[in-house]
Amino acid sequence: MQICRTVEEIRTFVRQARADGKIVGLVPTMGYFHEGHLTLMREAKKSCDAVVVSLYVNPLQFGPKEDLAQYPRDFDRDCAMAWEVGVDAIFSPADEEMYPAGFSTFVEVTGITEKLCGLSRPGHFRGVATVVTKLFNIVRPDRAFFGQKDAQQAMVIERMVTDLNMGPEIVLVPIVREDDGLAMSSRNVYLNDEQRRAAPVLYRSLCAFREAVARGERDVQELRGQIVQMIASTPGAEMDYVEILSVPDLEQLDKVRGKCIAALAVRFGRTRLIDNIIVEV
Amino acid sequence: MQICRTVEEIRTFVRQARADGKIVGLVPTMGYFHEGHLTLMREAKKSCDAVVVSLYVNPLQFGPKEDLAQYPRDFDRDCAMAWEVGVDAIFSPADEEMYPAGFSTFVEVTGITEKLCGLSRPGHFRGVATVVTKLFNIVRPDRAFFGQKDAQQAMVIERMVTDLNMGPEIVLVPIVREDDGLAMSSRNVYLNDEQRRAAPVLYRSLCAFREAVARGERDVQELRGQIVQMIASTPGAEMDYVEILSVPDLEQLDKVRGKCIAALAVRFGRTRLIDNIIVEV
Repeated sequence: MQICRTVEEIRTFVRQARADGKIVGLVPTMGYFHEGHLTLMREAKKSCDAVVVSLYVNPLQFGPKEDLAQYPRDFDRDCAMAWEVGVDAIFSPADEEMYPAGFSTFVEVTGITEKLCGLSRPGHFRGVATVVTKLFNIVRPDRAFFGQKDAQQAMVIERMVTDLNMGPEIVLVPIVREDDGLAMSSRNVYLNDEQRRAAPVLYRSLCAFREAVARGERDVQELRGQIVQMIASTPGAEMDYVEILSVPDLEQLDKVRGKCIAALAVRFGRTRLIDNIIVEV
Repeated sequence: MQICRTVEEIRTFVRQARADGKIVGLVPTMGYFHEGHLTLMREAKKSCDAVVVSLYVNPLQFGPKEDLAQYPRDFDRDCAMAWEVGVDAIFSPADEEMYPAGFSTFVEVTGITEKLCGLSRPGHFRGVATVVTKLFNIVRPDRAFFGQKDAQQAMVIERMVTDLNMGPEIVLVPIVREDDGLAMSSRNVYLNDEQRRAAPVLYRSLCAFREAVARGERDVQELRGQIVQMIASTPGAEMDYVEILSVPDLEQLDKVRGKCIAALAVRFGRTRLIDNIIVEV
């Protein structure tokens, strides 16, 4: 497994892979791998001959009051895990390599970014769209793999790829969960025992939503109310948002119809967790 | 010469050119060709094996009160002229092909776009950066050719290409002028005889600037004043801006030093003309 710190190094790696006729896959990550990341890498290995994992905590997608400094990092452990899965190259650049002095260009997806996490995290998706554009231009992958856990991010990237005629095929990979249903996240390590015991309520409330829809409930206000109540009645859980919106346009709905997403963000102390579930009726 | 109306058609053409080991050049234009465009195409022919000319009047870079509707068009004449020069393919998409319903992603270069034409034409460079990003992603050229006449546009594109790690090498081609010094522009056809006779004052004032600098004048206020006076004393010429700024950062200066640009925009009736000259001391 090759470890590349500069744009030139990873470009050289990819140039060679292409010359060898290989299909190149990219898995963009911020590191501190868990089973969710490894699942993305395994998916990439299935359909690509050369898998590049970018490991970069992108400052551009963190707000001034967010957890950029504390964000968990363990480069050696990450490399070992990626190597286990058979990743071919890690691209882990320094900030000066990605955003040298004078950097002043940004990619902005409008509309769907003005909902959900876009409201609680202004500028977040601009940072995501900009770094993913750079990674796509640097690596030029045939396929890029993203997790369904960051559902809005996935929609933003699909919108961007379509609008700007970007090359890579976007592959979405289902959420990987702990045994008790908590969606895997690098931020779960922030949780204390009590918060960790309470956190599975996020998924339980989403399952209750799915079951209610399966039973025939269509009223969005009613369905949202059920989720809100389950969260609100959980000690230590502070709601950021709970929304039921259309997919992929994230429009408000009165009634559940077609493809819909129930998405939520909940804080436990200073730890903000997100989860979502998509239903189709 | 192949004429492509869809993204898929031009991609097929470029894929074949690449398969044949050809170097691909792109000349982005809005059509209504003059010697300036043809010079860009000839430059591209010199260093590329397959030259693609995009011919698209990009609505995204026109303001609501600007001349999008009146912008001169003559597709058949343009194709004949491009064929004469040996262009290999024309990419001339419809608006629905470039901006289908739901389009909502934009590329924004900050800083240098907040000067000169960026002030008189809000949103203009966002439209330019977005369409050029699309063209680069669609054609994936090895080299892209731009005219020095749109000096700020060239700086914006070079900034964008650097910041977002885009592939193409950017080649800048000097301004082509009429015998009396007027910079060639598709918009020159808007001028009536009187305005056309007056318009060369733009270049004369820039030459006077260059001579004054050559004589040792360094005071920007003084130099700018000379240009302003020549324009102001020309009947029918209405100044939009006259600026002397650093290159490539477009910073304000007290004294001319290093590489500087004198750039101006002047209206004759409803026709807005731009010109510029770069000096190095």
